Amino acid sequence: MDRVNLAGKLARVDRHWTPAIVADLNDHQVKVVKIQGAFEWHHHEREDELFLVVKGRFCMEFRDRSVWLETGDLIVVPKGVEHRPVAEAECEIVLIEPATTLNTGNVRSERTVDTLQRL
Amino acid sequence: MDRVNLAGKLARVDRHWTPAIVADLNDHQVKVVKIQGAFEWHHHEREDELFLVVKGRFCMEFRDRSVWLETGDLIVVPKGVEHRPVAEAECEIVLIEPATTLNTGNVRSERTVDTLQRL
Repeated sequence: MDRVNLAGKLARVDRHWTPAIVADLNDHQVKVVKIQGAFEWHHHEREDELFLVVKGRFCMEFRDRSVWLETGDLIVVPKGVEHRPVAEAECEIVLIEPATTLNTGNVRSERTVDTLQRL
Repeated sequence: MDRVNLAGKLARVDRHWTPAIVADLNDHQVKVVKIQGAFEWHHHEREDELFLVVKGRFCMEFRDRSVWLETGDLIVVPKGVEHRPVAEAECEIVLIEPATTLNTGNVRSERTVDTLQRL
């Protein structure tokens, strides 16, 4: 039941594409992540995934269209939908998703993070 | 899979203490709410509840202590814990909680909202 300051948590993140857990919410987790560049195309079989932009902007690419997200915008990517976040410049994001969610979904790559740090 | 602009959704809220749904996330809902003044003491039997301050500040009172939350801060109130949000001036908040969550928890009052609007 402590205050979580998002900017303060994000200031402690020093690697792109590496989510860190900042709070638990029922069977979900709240994570912060810094992104830059293009991520892998992937989907999550069973989990909807929320992205909220805290600082900067990025583009959520889907196979048939793209959605630009600015600071103060959120999007929910439904389970089963292929997506790829792309950020031209560094962007700071909050993720909220079930604790079972793997960052690269159905794909394994050098960016897959099996054990997340807690900040 | 649309962009949800939180400030834009909140601009459409014209009543205090009346959450509106802006997105669905698995069995959870994302809501926006404007608060001012002191709410009822209550708890949620089965649901953790996330509060994120989008604009302004408020105090989350617990029976044994209080936590001040500023813009960009979040807090998770665990299930079963009595709490009372208090805002001196109007404060804009995002709530994320299971779809089963009633705003006044175990208490019924004139502020209880059984059917939430979608924005």
